[in-house]
Amino acid sequence: MFKFIQKSSKKAGSPPGELVHVGKKRSEKIKISLIDYDEERLEEKKVKVITDVFPFKESPTVTWINIDGLHDMNVVKKIGEHFDIHPLVLEDIVHTGQRPKMEDFEDYLFITLKMLSLDKKTNEIEAEQISLVMGNNFLISFQEREGDVFDAVRDRLKGNKGRIRKAGVDYLAYTLVDSIVDNYFSILENLGDKLEDLEKELLEEPDEKTRQAIYKIKREMIFVRKSIWPLREVINGLMRGDISLIQDTTIVYLKDVYDHTIQVIDTVETFRDMTSGMLDSYLSSISNKMNEVMKVLTIFAAIFIPLTFIAGVYGMNFEFMPELGWEWAYPVWWIIVIALGIGMVIYFKKKKWM
Amino acid sequence: MFKFIQKSSKKAGSPPGELVHVGKKRSEKIKISLIDYDEERLEEKKVKVITDVFPFKESPTVTWINIDGLHDMNVVKKIGEHFDIHPLVLEDIVHTGQRPKMEDFEDYLFITLKMLSLDKKTNEIEAEQISLVMGNNFLISFQEREGDVFDAVRDRLKGNKGRIRKAGVDYLAYTLVDSIVDNYFSILENLGDKLEDLEKELLEEPDEKTRQAIYKIKREMIFVRKSIWPLREVINGLMRGDISLIQDTTIVYLKDVYDHTIQVIDTVETFRDMTSGMLDSYLSSISNKMNEVMKVLTIFAAIFIPLTFIAGVYGMNFEFMPELGWEWAYPVWWIIVIALGIGMVIYFKKKKWM
Amino acid sequence: MFKFIQKSSKKAGSPPGELVHVGKKRSEKIKISLIDYDEERLEEKKVKVITDVFPFKESPTVTWINIDGLHDMNVVKKIGEHFDIHPLVLEDIVHTGQRPKMEDFEDYLFITLKMLSLDKKTNEIEAEQISLVMGNNFLISFQEREGDVFDAVRDRLKGNKGRIRKAGVDYLAYTLVDSIVDNYFSILENLGDKLEDLEKELLEEPDEKTRQAIYKIKREMIFVRKSIWPLREVINGLMRGDISLIQDTTIVYLKDVYDHTIQVIDTVETFRDMTSGMLDSYLSSISNKMNEVMKVLTIFAAIFIPLTFIAGVYGMNFEFMPELGWEWAYPVWWIIVIALGIGMVIYFKKKKWM
Amino acid sequence: MFKFIQKSSKKAGSPPGELVHVGKKRSEKIKISLIDYDEERLEEKKVKVITDVFPFKESPTVTWINIDGLHDMNVVKKIGEHFDIHPLVLEDIVHTGQRPKMEDFEDYLFITLKMLSLDKKTNEIEAEQISLVMGNNFLISFQEREGDVFDAVRDRLKGNKGRIRKAGVDYLAYTLVDSIVDNYFSILENLGDKLEDLEKELLEEPDEKTRQAIYKIKREMIFVRKSIWPLREVINGLMRGDISLIQDTTIVYLKDVYDHTIQVIDTVETFRDMTSGMLDSYLSSISNKMNEVMKVLTIFAAIFIPLTFIAGVYGMNFEFMPELGWEWAYPVWWIIVIALGIGMVIYFKKKKWM
Amino acid sequence: MFKFIQKSSKKAGSPPGELVHVGKKRSEKIKISLIDYDEERLEEKKVKVITDVFPFKESPTVTWINIDGLHDMNVVKKIGEHFDIHPLVLEDIVHTGQRPKMEDFEDYLFITLKMLSLDKKTNEIEAEQISLVMGNNFLISFQEREGDVFDAVRDRLKGNKGRIRKAGVDYLAYTLVDSIVDNYFSILENLGDKLEDLEKELLEEPDEKTRQAIYKIKREMIFVRKSIWPLREVINGLMRGDISLIQDTTIVYLKDVYDHTIQVIDTVETFRDMTSGMLDSYLSSISNKMNEVMKVLTIFAAIFIPLTFIAGVYGMNFEFMPELGWEWAYPVWWIIVIALGIGMVIYFKKKKWM
Repeated sequence: MFKFIQKSSKKAGSPPGELVHVGKKRSEKIKISLIDYDEERLEEKKVKVITDVFPFKESPTVTWINIDGLHDMNVVKKIGEHFDIHPLVLEDIVHTGQRPKMEDFEDYLFITLKMLSLDKKTNEIEAEQISLVMGNNFLISFQEREGDVFDAVRDRLKGNKGRIRKAGVDYLAYTLVDSIVDNYFSILENLGDKLEDLEKELLEEPDEKTRQAIYKIKREMIFVRKSIWPLREVINGLMRGDISLIQDTTIVYLKDVYDHTIQVIDTVETFRDMTSGMLDSYLSSISNKMNEVMKVLTIFAAIFIPLTFIAGVYGMNFEFMPELGWEWAYPVWWIIVIALGIGMVIYFKKKKWM
Repeated sequence: MFKFIQKSSKKAGSPPGELVHVGKKRSEKIKISLIDYDEERLEEKKVKVITDVFPFKESPTVTWINIDGLHDMNVVKKIGEHFDIHPLVLEDIVHTGQRPKMEDFEDYLFITLKMLSLDKKTNEIEAEQISLVMGNNFLISFQEREGDVFDAVRDRLKGNKGRIRKAGVDYLAYTLVDSIVDNYFSILENLGDKLEDLEKELLEEPDEKTRQAIYKIKREMIFVRKSIWPLREVINGLMRGDISLIQDTTIVYLKDVYDHTIQVIDTVETFRDMTSGMLDSYLSSISNKMNEVMKVLTIFAAIFIPLTFIAGVYGMNFEFMPELGWEWAYPVWWIIVIALGIGMVIYFKKKKWM
Repeated sequence: MFKFIQKSSKKAGSPPGELVHVGKKRSEKIKISLIDYDEERLEEKKVKVITDVFPFKESPTVTWINIDGLHDMNVVKKIGEHFDIHPLVLEDIVHTGQRPKMEDFEDYLFITLKMLSLDKKTNEIEAEQISLVMGNNFLISFQEREGDVFDAVRDRLKGNKGRIRKAGVDYLAYTLVDSIVDNYFSILENLGDKLEDLEKELLEEPDEKTRQAIYKIKREMIFVRKSIWPLREVINGLMRGDISLIQDTTIVYLKDVYDHTIQVIDTVETFRDMTSGMLDSYLSSISNKMNEVMKVLTIFAAIFIPLTFIAGVYGMNFEFMPELGWEWAYPVWWIIVIALGIGMVIYFKKKKWM
Repeated sequence: MFKFIQKSSKKAGSPPGELVHVGKKRSEKIKISLIDYDEERLEEKKVKVITDVFPFKESPTVTWINIDGLHDMNVVKKIGEHFDIHPLVLEDIVHTGQRPKMEDFEDYLFITLKMLSLDKKTNEIEAEQISLVMGNNFLISFQEREGDVFDAVRDRLKGNKGRIRKAGVDYLAYTLVDSIVDNYFSILENLGDKLEDLEKELLEEPDEKTRQAIYKIKREMIFVRKSIWPLREVINGLMRGDISLIQDTTIVYLKDVYDHTIQVIDTVETFRDMTSGMLDSYLSSISNKMNEVMKVLTIFAAIFIPLTFIAGVYGMNFEFMPELGWEWAYPVWWIIVIALGIGMVIYFKKKKWM
Repeated sequence: MFKFIQKSSKKAGSPPGELVHVGKKRSEKIKISLIDYDEERLEEKKVKVITDVFPFKESPTVTWINIDGLHDMNVVKKIGEHFDIHPLVLEDIVHTGQRPKMEDFEDYLFITLKMLSLDKKTNEIEAEQISLVMGNNFLISFQEREGDVFDAVRDRLKGNKGRIRKAGVDYLAYTLVDSIVDNYFSILENLGDKLEDLEKELLEEPDEKTRQAIYKIKREMIFVRKSIWPLREVINGLMRGDISLIQDTTIVYLKDVYDHTIQVIDTVETFRDMTSGMLDSYLSSISNKMNEVMKVLTIFAAIFIPLTFIAGVYGMNFEFMPELGWEWAYPVWWIIVIALGIGMVIYFKKKKWM
């Protein structure tokens, strides 16, 4: 299950800007890929050594450098030095567990947000921190591990579909953010499906499993909400229009992502409302059930306990019990007992317990 | 039951502005109707081919083009091209599931909101997205399917009742929004009636069905709220007075719709408060009932279990039990047993359990 | 019981400004009364025909026209025409169910608010919409039915007590609003008394009736809150100082009403807090009671069921049961049984169940 | 128990500014005391007739007039006339039950707030309204009854401790407000102690008394909160710096009171959080207990009811029951019964019910 | 367990600025240490007499004076006099229990916040008030007792790591605040671990201990929240840029702490959400369990009570009971009884109780 807080105590006390990776220790090599393009041509390559990307800093074409893996401090440090990135930004990049935020450093723009994905096996939601550093004509994206939601963007770049090759690096950044936000919808769909299943369960046969499912989905909702909520501010900041690196033509697109973000947040809030409604409904359904059980118990006990008493009476061994000798005593006894039983049934029917 | 989120995963990844309809696949033809009018004359016609409406773009008269059905991307695309509508707006129009919003593009104004209606059969609330694109002298309304709340507007137009034929296209747009908001009142009435029925049930005989009804109405409330809440901002934006397409004389009317919207939102909030009050009341009513059941059980058990024990005592077969031989043992036994029973009844009366 | 929403579906679809009364159909004649005064003299009369009040529009003296009953559209329409009132305002006047609001039309000021009263018979709170149209030297008040809280104002006018005859029409309007707000206090007192009764019940003997009373008072609170809450904005708007019809000397009085309104709202919120506290307390009191019942049941069952078993053992008819023949078996049996019983009692005492 | 609303219906309808005392009728004489001081000298005296204080209005020294008791309208009225106080202010002074507020009338400043105290006998919190009217060099304090938290201030004045004799009347007003706010801390301490006692009860042996205690403390919290919350605004208004009667040097002291007020409010909110946590905990503790009771019942019933049945079987009087005649039947029966009993015990142990 | 309010009643009534220590009485000597440094050299020493630190006030190098223990009023008073600190600030320093705040006095800056730590033995969170007074080139830190989170800072100073020796006193202040905020993360980790343990318990075997644990963690959360929440304002105030003592280059670092603070607050809120989710889940789990218990009871009672009655019937001693003499009566009786038992079992299986 996901954690709500990064273990970072090993970091506490080190000077600000010192790079300490706080995620899981990993040993595979960091993967660096590069796409360099303008309207005319596009070059894609895998980079072995980080210094290979440095020349692209000054090239007039748009360069997108994507880095998968944050555990090699050396790579991050070298990028930081070459691209003049503030040490605190580098710290935020490797110290995953940041709240989504945006910072404008005039020369470059720093954006960090959460990419959500579904773990295929457990059907649980996972978050990965994506950091974007956008300069004048380059964009560096940092991911915790391989695999992302940007394949469609790469295809559009290669296929030269839409505005993407004509527009600048800010449009590329927008496209990446847009992909991440669009992907939230599929996460929400998954949550929505789970909610619908729960709803059905709730109307039919809620049990202990339902309780755990409600708890789990509530927890997921808290997690998703925490990841998405700050995004609103981030995108609002981007489209405010006072960031020199973002062109005016891109702002209408940012407004679109903003609307999507609001929609996502709205839906998360709606889901939260629904979940709390479900919990209330579940609680009253349990109470209802207990009522049912209690009624059955009460009916059985209230009918047969008095009758057993009456049977007990005539099981006594007193020498002088005149009824015992009467000829019709036994059938009369049965008549009385049955009458009593029927009386009880009528009583419970009137009380609507049967 | 309505969904809270549009299935849109098939869309994720496509470039912004690409038109993909996300509603249910449908095959019937899109219906286009047109009303062109000024103070003197009015022309109404059904249009077969979308290009037939293009000449009206430049006509000095007010033209209202209504399109029922969004599944034919071609029609929407052509309108977009001819009327110079931004691709992102077109995307919002076909991608139903938008949050109500308003955008001012100087040349035209884009408004999208939710029309609510009651499904006659299931008595459930349904939402349909209505998008309005209002230009200088034309207004295009997009609906998901046939059937709307605008018939009274059409009658007023044809009957030349009130200001409508004298006023401009902004007044027409106001009239449509007003019709939609007015319709919310009848939805709320329906909800209010359901709430009153529930209230009666709650005071009389709440049961499992009540629980499900409360849950369902709560869900409907969440749904209605989500559809209506953002409207406030939308209309507030329209009446702010900085939109060149809206004349000053229309603003007093917009203020009226705004008041209605606030009233609707107020009522929805009140209903929410009431529903949560009902749930609390329902829960305590169940607990009360369980208490009742428990008391009956306890009374029966507490009275007859001891008596059965006493009967059991004299059902024992010990050889030396002096009481068994006493002449008055049996009547004395009865006296004791009845006294005990009456004692218990008095005890429970004192405890107010009977 | 009061409704939270006016049935207005018959209205939906009619053009804005069309007058349709939405309250209960009533046939009695509308009552119009008029008080015309300045510092020197005061004239009061009942008016038969509405046109009789028209001359007072231009008179330099202050004229207060009070109209009881809104079901005669003709009267309202004529007033609207003669006093130049916007059709949408007239619509708000007859369409009771408005949210309290204030609108400044330069020439006149429109205020609508809720007058609360107690139905003597049912002890329930009722609301009546009061609309005030205040011009340069006239004030028209519209009420749904006869009977109001303004008698003290009329007495002050006639008795020439205080500032009222010296001050202008804005002071008269203030006085009316003040009377309505002052009246809220007596409504709150009534609610407060009910709450105190409930509190006493809660500490003594809460039962099903308590639940229904809590629910009812909660509902009343929601109702009162909905009627009063928007008043804050209304009076705030009046005292902002940018309304030409209100003189500066009146503003200090408006500030006083504002303080009262805040106090009323404060008290309503406090009452809500208390009611929710009561509900919680009620729920736990029920649980406590159930616990009591359960304990009694458990004690009886746990003591006597094992003893009954032991009695049953010696009621068996096995031929070879050596105990049956022992001379002291029966008294020993009693000793064992009583010891067991006492043991159980001690056990339950230790568990604090007895 | 304290009331949340002043009975003021007798007041409703009287003109604004008319003085009607709404507290309890009381007959003892109003007590007036006066302290007149500057840096050099201090004069303290009890005043019999209110007119005796009038000369001090113009004296250059600082004069503090304290009035205990508000039931003599004459005294208040005369003060109002001589010191030129607005009738609405006088009304607020005698009409206890005001929300804490501050009003700047240029010539004088009006502050009203709540002094809280503990009733020694019942250990309940009581509120008393304190009103301060501060002029150029006089300060009049109105209290509902004798006894206040100002003794330390009087001592400091007489002892000439600290800045108090050197500073102006605004510093005196600050000192009084500060004393009242400081006193809130001891009220909070009392509440805190009660909360801690409750906490202990909750972890040990929560019962019906606990429920009532939680309810009572919650009610007290609502009361305290209502009295303290508006103070924030009041002091914020005082230190805003646009009030001519308050010198700049006093503002740093007001900031200090402001911090204390925030701290008090913070603590009240924290207490509220804790109380609601307690209630939740209490509710689950009851449920837990009921579970315990139920388990005991179930264990007894489930073990002995089947055994009683088996005993019943061999108590039957059928003529042909072969087991009855078997020699080892009785011991075998015991073995079976004991085995069954042990089996049940093991079963319940496995279910963790024992 | 920590207190939510400082016992300060002994303080109430004393003049503002009078120094009364309100923490626990302690007798050990106050410890004063001093670090004086610039880029070139660093001097560290323990100070015996407070006057030894006075010369450093004017030295051009940065001086950090750390004071452990606040119970010696003399020391605090002398510092206040020499460093020209306002008496109210000194009062805030010794009167622990302040809300975190920041005040700019032009000549110096006063910051007070809470350092949280874990009591090793009880695993409970403790708070200690840290006050910082930052002048032009000195910084005085006041702590309640020895032991803090500043060791890493001291190491960095001595090791001349990072910017710290090159930067001014404002950077030192930032570093201290940063250390405290960083330390919050380890507190949150501890809370997070407890929450995870609780979560596991909740899914497995929740019991009375779980209830107490949830209550305790909730209480800790309230405590942590109260300590951390106001920090946001504090740091926001520091980085606003209008404080002359803080250099522009430090602001980017303050922004970093600000982000961390937001993250901490975010996490606390998330934890609160989770805890309340846990409580709900716990409550329904108890209800579920009670349901289980009830079902077992009902099954046993409903099966065996009727059978016991039937056995009772044939234990009766009527003389004329024909069944008793029938040859196959006993086996037939068994067949009936077993059939009935199986019938009940089937019934309960169908009801899903078994």
